[in-house]
Amino acid sequence: MPHSSFQIEDLIASYRDGRTTPEQVIAEVYDRIDAWPDKAVWISLFPREEALAKAKALAARPEGVDGLPLYGVPFAVKDNIDVAGLPTTAACPDYAYQPWENATAVQRLLDAGAIAIGKTNLDQFATGLNGTRSPYGAPRCVFDQEYISGGSSSGSAVAVASGMVSFSLGTDTAGSGRVPAALNNIVGVKPTKGLLSTAGVVPACRSLDCVTVLALNVGDGNRVRRIASANDGDDPYGRTMTPKSLPLRGFRFGVLAGEDRNFFGDKDSAGLYDRACERLASFGGQAVPFDYQPFRDAAALLYDGPWVAERLAAIQTFFNNNPMAVHPVVRQIVQGGRRFSALDAFEGQYRLKALERVAAREWEKFDFMLLPTCPTTYKVAEMEANPVEYNSNLGLYTNFVNLLDCCGLAVPAGKRRDGLPLGVTLIGPAFTDDALGVLGDRLHRALVESAGATGQLLSARSLVAEPAGAAYVDLAVVGAHLRGMKLHHQLTELDARFVRACRTAGSYRLFALPDTTPPKPGLIRDPDFKGKGLEIEVWRLTDAAFGRFVGRIPGPLGIGTIELEDGTSVKSFLCEEWAVRGAEEITGFGGWKGYCTALTMGKAGVASPG
Amino acid sequence: MPHSSFQIEDLIASYRDGRTTPEQVIAEVYDRIDAWPDKAVWISLFPREEALAKAKALAARPEGVDGLPLYGVPFAVKDNIDVAGLPTTAACPDYAYQPWENATAVQRLLDAGAIAIGKTNLDQFATGLNGTRSPYGAPRCVFDQEYISGGSSSGSAVAVASGMVSFSLGTDTAGSGRVPAALNNIVGVKPTKGLLSTAGVVPACRSLDCVTVLALNVGDGNRVRRIASANDGDDPYGRTMTPKSLPLRGFRFGVLAGEDRNFFGDKDSAGLYDRACERLASFGGQAVPFDYQPFRDAAALLYDGPWVAERLAAIQTFFNNNPMAVHPVVRQIVQGGRRFSALDAFEGQYRLKALERVAAREWEKFDFMLLPTCPTTYKVAEMEANPVEYNSNLGLYTNFVNLLDCCGLAVPAGKRRDGLPLGVTLIGPAFTDDALGVLGDRLHRALVESAGATGQLLSARSLVAEPAGAAYVDLAVVGAHLRGMKLHHQLTELDARFVRACRTAGSYRLFALPDTTPPKPGLIRDPDFKGKGLEIEVWRLTDAAFGRFVGRIPGPLGIGTIELEDGTSVKSFLCEEWAVRGAEEITGFGGWKGYCTALTMGKAGVASPG
Repeated sequence: MPHSSFQIEDLIASYRDGRTTPEQVIAEVYDRIDAWPDKAVWISLFPREEALAKAKALAARPEGVDGLPLYGVPFAVKDNIDVAGLPTTAACPDYAYQPWENATAVQRLLDAGAIAIGKTNLDQFATGLNGTRSPYGAPRCVFDQEYISGGSSSGSAVAVASGMVSFSLGTDTAGSGRVPAALNNIVGVKPTKGLLSTAGVVPACRSLDCVTVLALNVGDGNRVRRIASANDGDDPYGRTMTPKSLPLRGFRFGVLAGEDRNFFGDKDSAGLYDRACERLASFGGQAVPFDYQPFRDAAALLYDGPWVAERLAAIQTFFNNNPMAVHPVVRQIVQGGRRFSALDAFEGQYRLKALERVAAREWEKFDFMLLPTCPTTYKVAEMEANPVEYNSNLGLYTNFVNLLDCCGLAVPAGKRRDGLPLGVTLIGPAFTDDALGVLGDRLHRALVESAGATGQLLSARSLVAEPAGAAYVDLAVVGAHLRGMKLHHQLTELDARFVRACRTAGSYRLFALPDTTPPKPGLIRDPDFKGKGLEIEVWRLTDAAFGRFVGRIPGPLGIGTIELEDGTSVKSFLCEEWAVRGAEEITGFGGWKGYCTALTMGKAGVASPG
Repeated sequence: MPHSSFQIEDLIASYRDGRTTPEQVIAEVYDRIDAWPDKAVWISLFPREEALAKAKALAARPEGVDGLPLYGVPFAVKDNIDVAGLPTTAACPDYAYQPWENATAVQRLLDAGAIAIGKTNLDQFATGLNGTRSPYGAPRCVFDQEYISGGSSSGSAVAVASGMVSFSLGTDTAGSGRVPAALNNIVGVKPTKGLLSTAGVVPACRSLDCVTVLALNVGDGNRVRRIASANDGDDPYGRTMTPKSLPLRGFRFGVLAGEDRNFFGDKDSAGLYDRACERLASFGGQAVPFDYQPFRDAAALLYDGPWVAERLAAIQTFFNNNPMAVHPVVRQIVQGGRRFSALDAFEGQYRLKALERVAAREWEKFDFMLLPTCPTTYKVAEMEANPVEYNSNLGLYTNFVNLLDCCGLAVPAGKRRDGLPLGVTLIGPAFTDDALGVLGDRLHRALVESAGATGQLLSARSLVAEPAGAAYVDLAVVGAHLRGMKLHHQLTELDARFVRACRTAGSYRLFALPDTTPPKPGLIRDPDFKGKGLEIEVWRLTDAAFGRFVGRIPGPLGIGTIELEDGTSVKSFLCEEWAVRGAEEITGFGGWKGYCTALTMGKAGVASPG
């Protein structure tokens, strides 16, 4: 019998309908934890009775299921993030400390009604992408215990993919929140840097670290991301969301080509990537091959360049006193931070800045990228035999993302013939998180049917809707702003994009306004009038450009809403009624251009034809 | 007899009127250079005949004085910026090289018709704020040869203040483009980082360096800044201008108070600062004392922290091979860069990020700052006796500006009783350069009459006008968006700021629209109607917020332009005329709130009073 679904909207629907209670769900969580064969997933758990008591206490909160967006939702926390009541180990027992407060992100989830279950295993100090670098054992892929789970958020990924909890928090510096999502058939939300506070998180590279969300579907992941977000003042790198949109139709997405398409011989993985690209294109997008070199070069800086010194900065007192307490592979990496001088650090930044410029030229070709999350996967034994090279391979398509200030959304892409899942990541400029969510959810649902290893279908309740408040406005121009007319430059200067030429509904009348320079028409709706519609052009502007445009329109013209011939509505020029009293009606010319043409041909002033 | 004015607009007017020619002006430039007693100003000059030939060639360019915004305008270039045909020394003869190309900023000025005269002296490798650290001698204050000129753009400041050239290029990392402006009674424009390309500039601290403009008035400085700006792809730190506005009335400006008000005992300088604050307040601003501590702490990082390693990075090959070729004070500073590890460099950045957060809380209190440019000045002999401490004193109010990503505009503030000038600097967030220019020009003209040491009045032709395309829009709300009404939250969510409550002109009529939820009025202008005006509220939104707001307004409402009782115009809600046909006219209630109050009191539906 398949488990009941812990996908968030399903769970909340069950609570709302009275089909289950938080106490029943928490009991089920602990049963699932007990039943899961892999005991390397958790580092510490709240005792079952304590969690049950919290579930019970939740019922006493006045907000109830309708007032708490994560009411009774169980979650796990990567053990480099503070949860009051459990030690923070960062997978290094000698480093462990007892935090007095919850990390900001954790606190916000608890405030929203979520229930913390325990702390999950990770590559020690979040230094790794494979999940084997921990004295607490190596969590295994949920589909094959011989294979790695990916890391460093290894336990967090397995806890979600196995269905033990609804979601988990991870962290991501080089790809730690995305690679384990890919290898366990779940979603990894790597938000724009700074949106989720790192207050209460053991740093890896403080200038790059992100708190991430691992979830069973994109809708769940985005919901948790939004709730956990806070520019709390305690994270010096904190930022506030200023959403940027992406075109949801007619978009261009960057794809790997030629030599850049490296899957280390894993043909199935390559095939999954190609299929994902095809599916994404089928939504109305265009795949654009680009040069991955500047991104690969940026990626290389993370482990081979001076940024390694940040890993040393993060734990230096402990590391200096207890070097042998650190996992040997991690020790070697952190130790490497000592090689670099301040001069190297600044030169690394110059190099990164220069690569940013080269990368920017590639970005001009597309709106976002679709990359393999990781090129392939490995057995635990293979990884242990070759811990540095294979780890580097896993990060080939993830390492650059934080250095170049992008956000990423890792979604499952299907399975190899041997049943192991791989994934793809949508990568966009900072603050396109919401926009990526819309396309990422569609792609996820087009590529796979079930969530993690739960056997459950992706919840239809969690479908991600297109954003209501689009950051673009479509504006119909009627007169001097039409192509070829005197004021058209005002649109092009604002980077307006042409959408279509069409006609208004039949109820509009057009007048030649007297005493305007350049000459302009006035559009008036008259519900009693039945005409043929007037020729207009629809142009698309950003909110800011639209605002600037509207701000400059002189009276008696203004911007309102008009109906088009196809029954849809757009913003458009309108005219105050008093200004057309006594003006020449030119509706019969079919539009401003028709009138102007007639004017040049000497037909002006005569009675309007038609 | 006073010199003829080289202020840019005056010069161009002379060319346009045929009162002079570029050849005559260039001859005059060389005469003035020959006549100036201080021979430490220039490091190299184009031969007089060569410059005259260029002036002559200018007449052959087809664009002419009307097509070239810097037609025949002579300028100087700090000798750490490449000018093809002259060596670049950075004030270190052994470092000198012969550049093949002009720096981007220089090239853009030449393209605009300006004529380069020569290269000016500086604190070696732009390391200093005083002007004495050069083997080419110490340029002196134009008003007293015993006193320092300030640096590091020492020669560039003197060349302008003495009237030899119209403007000059400098550079500014710690304050090098502002301090010498203050000490020579001229304007120093320190643009937002990245606006002027550093391609072709010898770096000081590559992540912080700015090319700056020294000019006789703010209008000249801004004109040159705009022309020289280019995100040319060769400066990895390059950025494109996205102008941010500042309120030009009702603004709040941060001022020093208490212990932070440190002039090292220079009471005259303190008095000049107080007078500048009073004048600025008299323009409709409010002086807001704030805590300077986080800014002072950030400033200290520049010379005492790991950023010194950038100075080493800039010249390391040369420095390693020729340490004794470097000025002893500069050598000591650059040498200090070796002390720091990559770990120090990252920890310095963490410290700066943390200070940014503290500083941000101060920024919430004001729109921009007014600070002394430097607290006092020194004699050359005093500076040479105490070269590090006194230099630090000069940078007390300048060092933080680039670290915290601000732009600065240094303007003269008048003279001490001994005749030595000091200045004040307006400091704003990145990209407020244009807005600072408006207020800076007004302040400059309110505080001093003459330009540099030229004896000429500040040119009235160069007055800086308020920007035409404001990045804010004032919007009059009429109905459901008024304070306390149902849709008011749509304004507050967009961070709209209340401007004032007032009335429309008398020609507007108000109608209660049928079938609207929540209930809304429709405002219509009727030129034949003579009423008492309707109560409205004016709110201020950014372009983007305004665009978003307008995009969401449903028909039959729209946004147009209305006239207010005082004859001014603002954007406001208007209604399509067809929608009020048959609607109840409520003009007599004096506004939407009056009508709603009457409605609650049971008077609705009765004939409108008054």
